[in-house]
Amino acid sequence: MPRQISGLTVRDIRTPTSRTLAGSDAVHTDPDYSATYVVLTTDAGDGLEGHGMTFTLGRGNEVCVAAVRALQHLVLGSTLESITSDMGAVWQRLTHESQLRWIGPEKGAIHLATAAIVNAVWDLYAKVERKPVWKLVADMTPEQIVSCIDFRYITDALTRGEALEILRRKFSTRAEREAQMRAEGYPAYITSAGWMGYPDDKVRRLCREALADGWRAFKIKVGRDSDANVHRAALVREEIGPQNKMMMDANQAWDVGEAIEFMRPLARFNPLWIEEPTSPDDILGHAKIRNAIRPVGVATGEHAANRVMFKQLLQAQAIDFCQFDNCRLGGLNEALAVLLLAAKFDVPVCPHAGGIGLCEYAQHTSLIDYVCVSGKLENRMTEFADHLHEHFKDPVVVRNGRYMPPTAAGFSIEMKPASLDAFEFPGGAEWKQ
Amino acid sequence: MPRQISGLTVRDIRTPTSRTLAGSDAVHTDPDYSATYVVLTTDAGDGLEGHGMTFTLGRGNEVCVAAVRALQHLVLGSTLESITSDMGAVWQRLTHESQLRWIGPEKGAIHLATAAIVNAVWDLYAKVERKPVWKLVADMTPEQIVSCIDFRYITDALTRGEALEILRRKFSTRAEREAQMRAEGYPAYITSAGWMGYPDDKVRRLCREALADGWRAFKIKVGRDSDANVHRAALVREEIGPQNKMMMDANQAWDVGEAIEFMRPLARFNPLWIEEPTSPDDILGHAKIRNAIRPVGVATGEHAANRVMFKQLLQAQAIDFCQFDNCRLGGLNEALAVLLLAAKFDVPVCPHAGGIGLCEYAQHTSLIDYVCVSGKLENRMTEFADHLHEHFKDPVVVRNGRYMPPTAAGFSIEMKPASLDAFEFPGGAEWKQ
Repeated sequence: MPRQISGLTVRDIRTPTSRTLAGSDAVHTDPDYSATYVVLTTDAGDGLEGHGMTFTLGRGNEVCVAAVRALQHLVLGSTLESITSDMGAVWQRLTHESQLRWIGPEKGAIHLATAAIVNAVWDLYAKVERKPVWKLVADMTPEQIVSCIDFRYITDALTRGEALEILRRKFSTRAEREAQMRAEGYPAYITSAGWMGYPDDKVRRLCREALADGWRAFKIKVGRDSDANVHRAALVREEIGPQNKMMMDANQAWDVGEAIEFMRPLARFNPLWIEEPTSPDDILGHAKIRNAIRPVGVATGEHAANRVMFKQLLQAQAIDFCQFDNCRLGGLNEALAVLLLAAKFDVPVCPHAGGIGLCEYAQHTSLIDYVCVSGKLENRMTEFADHLHEHFKDPVVVRNGRYMPPTAAGFSIEMKPASLDAFEFPGGAEWKQ
Repeated sequence: MPRQISGLTVRDIRTPTSRTLAGSDAVHTDPDYSATYVVLTTDAGDGLEGHGMTFTLGRGNEVCVAAVRALQHLVLGSTLESITSDMGAVWQRLTHESQLRWIGPEKGAIHLATAAIVNAVWDLYAKVERKPVWKLVADMTPEQIVSCIDFRYITDALTRGEALEILRRKFSTRAEREAQMRAEGYPAYITSAGWMGYPDDKVRRLCREALADGWRAFKIKVGRDSDANVHRAALVREEIGPQNKMMMDANQAWDVGEAIEFMRPLARFNPLWIEEPTSPDDILGHAKIRNAIRPVGVATGEHAANRVMFKQLLQAQAIDFCQFDNCRLGGLNEALAVLLLAAKFDVPVCPHAGGIGLCEYAQHTSLIDYVCVSGKLENRMTEFADHLHEHFKDPVVVRNGRYMPPTAAGFSIEMKPASLDAFEFPGGAEWKQ
């Protein structure tokens, strides 16, 4: 019997992270890590639900909730089978709805909401198949994976045929890489030590704890105070030593010329990359910065709205590291497109994961990249931020600075009912205080 | 006594244009031209209100309404004087709010909502000064105009100093151009004849009527059916003759390579430009298309989200015509930034105006361009679509294919109370039927 999607609920979930400055950076000074949280129910009577979310910083989460409601008619009443048999078409139905696309297209609140719904569908699909999402995809043929992707607007960089070729190249060796991942885990780096709002002694303590836990790559926040940038970089480099990796994140704080200037005194700390040096929309600006600050790399992506922006970042040779966000892109279908684009241009993908639920999502896309798409680990690391995992039923497992592949069915994004109730905005207990 | 903004209301106004296919194109097949309509009230007791709107296609308008509500705390309680004395800072407060910017930044629903609020402030400001908005700006010094602009992320293409220089160059001759505009009006072109959903005989009739009314430039819709494109182009060229201008609009229907192919059989109809040949985010794609289809020009902008996108379209030499939308950009402040960028790169601005209220807005920015910024009319035309003007208190006045400068105080965007009541969604009389 076909399983019909008979219900969709969406909730405004916010955690008060701004109280501790966890997550703070040069531009986002007081984030409340939040989720527009979607649950799909079906008429199958087996209790399986599809959970999905998009990530925001608090205020504005209610706008994404409204956007989910605007989109919900496009999946309600469909059978899961009709959706999964042509995922590419369903994705296009959501992103190219003739009236709704005006308020994007494929960007802003409507695209963030698309991610929540699309990934809820993947969660449901994977639960029905009794596999984690990464394994569901790893068991698909190249043809099946490609059929999930909307190639509209990217065929000048990547055709369906080229995508198939990339996937076929790694097809016969998938099992080896899967076994390797289950044994060793996927490499990660840690952001939790370097948040902007933390005092020196806290940063030192967190660096030492992270080193003891096996971390070998550390990201710090930088901003518009050059002396403070140098101070923080020196402090962290002193703690982690020359043999470990340090990355820097400006969170869009600079203009193009400023980025080049601000990076000058920071080069001596040997950063692997500078992340979001300027506006996320500025493809040509990133290319200019990249040319000016070699050998320091340029990374961006958490605010890049869609596959068209990534296509250009790659075409313009603007980035050394591709950091897409699984909630900013329109869900896994578009993430697959960007993984394939990055593989074509041989640029490593290091997904953005500093936020609630993002680590849970990112581990799946990184595993898909290694097992099915790029087959490479060189220069690849998935971000890890060590907070808020306690709210998830199947939280990430990190050992020795590596993500261990999730084994539970689904997309690892299902939150505990008690957490959802407590952090619902504005009525939950955490917000009533 | 300072005038405090003490109230903000926002309404969901939709007109059922999809019933007649007015506004239909290759991608937006059934638009209901709609407005997220904002009214600012003050404590001054003189009855002056600030009206502003953003434009959408119907569904999703409620998401923009939610976004206005998310932003309203940033202007409520401020005095008009505190806002107008530092417009640039206020604009940055709206667009870089530390939590809200995540759901943009500067794009999608939150940026559309910003336009409604920002332009409502300008409407109020102009009413207090008893001038139409274009004249309010035309009476500002170059320093005052520049102080309205947020130069963040564009200084690599246009510095504050360069902007001042551009404005100073045209300062002493403003009065001449103003007098010329009052006498002759600003050149326009008409889109109303060529909507996608119209049958041949209606297109012929509308072309003839428009010619009789003095129109000399006509835009048609094209799409993914090459034969239909050629048929429509031939029909319109036959009606308007070789001496008049024809423009084509694909509304993002094509990939980059497809755009080049679809334009091949259309070149013989001598179009001045092809508009939105592909994704509005694809700067490099537009540049590639432009190089391939000369001498046909490339135009885009109604879906370009912000000044950073226009900066790059200009830097990449991707466009021959800059078609920003006064509701897609974050209101007049950002439109001023784009006018100055376009002047620096010597690219003509032909604002997008196919939608409710957009003609009313566009006439102001075109007059500001001519009087204060570029001082040029060559290759400049403002779009005109001949419907829905009856809902406005101070509708556009078009004579002989030219916009006559508005004389009433404000931004010309105030709708009639009866129209607002009738078209409010979903409770208004027009939607209850």
